[in-house]
Amino acid sequence: MKRYLCGVDLGGTKLSAGIFNADGTVVDKRKVFDHKDLDCDGITNRVIALIRELLDNNGIMDEDLQGIGICMAGHVNYKKGLLITSSNFKAGFNNYPIREKVARKFRTHVILDNDANAQAYGELMFGAGRNFSDLIFLTVSTGVGCGIIVDRKLIRGMTGTAGEVGHTIVDPHSDVMCSCGNHGCLMSLSSGQYLAGMYRKYLAAGEKSSIGVDLSNVDDFNGMMMRRGLEDDDVISRKVLADSASAVGIGVYNLFQVLNPEIFIIGGGLTNCGEIYFDMIEEKFLSLVKKMMYDKIEIRPSALGNSAGLLGAAALTLEQV
Amino acid sequence: MKRYLCGVDLGGTKLSAGIFNADGTVVDKRKVFDHKDLDCDGITNRVIALIRELLDNNGIMDEDLQGIGICMAGHVNYKKGLLITSSNFKAGFNNYPIREKVARKFRTHVILDNDANAQAYGELMFGAGRNFSDLIFLTVSTGVGCGIIVDRKLIRGMTGTAGEVGHTIVDPHSDVMCSCGNHGCLMSLSSGQYLAGMYRKYLAAGEKSSIGVDLSNVDDFNGMMMRRGLEDDDVISRKVLADSASAVGIGVYNLFQVLNPEIFIIGGGLTNCGEIYFDMIEEKFLSLVKKMMYDKIEIRPSALGNSAGLLGAAALTLEQV
Repeated sequence: MKRYLCGVDLGGTKLSAGIFNADGTVVDKRKVFDHKDLDCDGITNRVIALIRELLDNNGIMDEDLQGIGICMAGHVNYKKGLLITSSNFKAGFNNYPIREKVARKFRTHVILDNDANAQAYGELMFGAGRNFSDLIFLTVSTGVGCGIIVDRKLIRGMTGTAGEVGHTIVDPHSDVMCSCGNHGCLMSLSSGQYLAGMYRKYLAAGEKSSIGVDLSNVDDFNGMMMRRGLEDDDVISRKVLADSASAVGIGVYNLFQVLNPEIFIIGGGLTNCGEIYFDMIEEKFLSLVKKMMYDKIEIRPSALGNSAGLLGAAALTLEQV
Repeated sequence: MKRYLCGVDLGGTKLSAGIFNADGTVVDKRKVFDHKDLDCDGITNRVIALIRELLDNNGIMDEDLQGIGICMAGHVNYKKGLLITSSNFKAGFNNYPIREKVARKFRTHVILDNDANAQAYGELMFGAGRNFSDLIFLTVSTGVGCGIIVDRKLIRGMTGTAGEVGHTIVDPHSDVMCSCGNHGCLMSLSSGQYLAGMYRKYLAAGEKSSIGVDLSNVDDFNGMMMRRGLEDDDVISRKVLADSASAVGIGVYNLFQVLNPEIFIIGGGLTNCGEIYFDMIEEKFLSLVKKMMYDKIEIRPSALGNSAGLLGAAALTLEQV
């Protein structure tokens, strides 16, 4: 009987795998960090070994699985099961057929998807999105990811790269260049890897830090330091958070106009700044939406947090496609 | 036998209705202009009379229809069949139950949808989108409309207002205010009703018109005059067109990142400026997409032109929802 779900969350530093019951409760899970210096095949074999170990330790046969869902940070060709490219691994994945390589070793169905898609699906099935059928999940972390669900199905586009909201242009005249080479992408105006640059701009304009940040050490400023800055009433930290929230608020508003979902769920490292961040995002959203919202739309925090990817990857085996 | 499709395109100045065969060929159609000063019920009754007239003239019974599809410019609640609001009519529609009022008079299924959705569906079934299943239709006319099709179904969102791409923010620091009250909406940077303001900006900066436009008459500048300007090598007309295309190019790029469709189809009055407009849009799109396009995406002109709405409305009766 296909009673168990297997999920894998394959990140650049952390590799997690878990076995879950169909209701999302955990049977067993493990995480390792020993894959990060391996090449493409080495990483794939580490994934295979980790799943096999979990199955063996729990006396679960391949045939007992609904399937294996694997999620990764990067551009994924869902239809073909390829990792197109990812900046999160030293190994240079380039249209690498990870799904097929894993599938050859297990007598069950294997799915490969982007991590934001998995997180969105996890929230739909077991998190803040239960009881909804149209939702948008946004994660604001080192980068910005997004999973779009319409009628309880993920929108993946032609090959699987839909949801790249981080690279939508929200301010074409911005002087901040994103890693993609464009100016004013949502990601470059809101995400963790750009916080130091945002802080630097205020320092350069003569504003004073109250948490000891200056031009010599500003490159170390990150989400963790911002949380400390907020606790210490550091004016610049608060302005940086507001700038990030303002960009995310535009992103949420634009997605609202394009897709009119029932609910936005926001997760990722920056949401650890707490309610103030959500309030700022909602304030920007409402200032733009004016009278154009005909039905109440909620903006809620992720309910699954860090485990959304792993649980979501497992849940993808339940998706009706 | 349900062999015919009935479509209605209800615009602020023109009301069209048509009967089509299931392959999209026309059986009969009519357009009238005598509805525009009527109140909400008056307009609805005019629609009912026009459909009845077409059916009677062609000896078609209600039961011979697959259904009646009605499309309108405005915010439509698809699920409930309400016209939420529209700026295209003197009559102040306000959550007006037009679908139900029409349905009461015919023994067939009635659908109400936004005109851009109908046009998108028309292109999918009978136009430039045949052989595709994921497409985005954009119309750049007096305003900007959009219909999104995924897996051969329209994405309507929670209640039917998805696709309002014209109100997405593409330049928050723009000094141009859209009719919605926000700055830098795609619509306010590209559509027909904002061309005069764009022309004025260049005149004010000291540029010279070669088609006799000056600050005293610039408010009359529109898409038709722009076409003349392009023929006469008017430098400002070309710049205005390029500005519009640049904003549309950002819009297309943002939609590409969010939805990864197979094809974009662009229609509406501004596309009458010809290939140069498409080239400018594509150039902007490609300049932003850089290496992030993993599969070729086409940008094509609408194949149905002005009849897309009417034919699309009729085709909506074939949609599997």
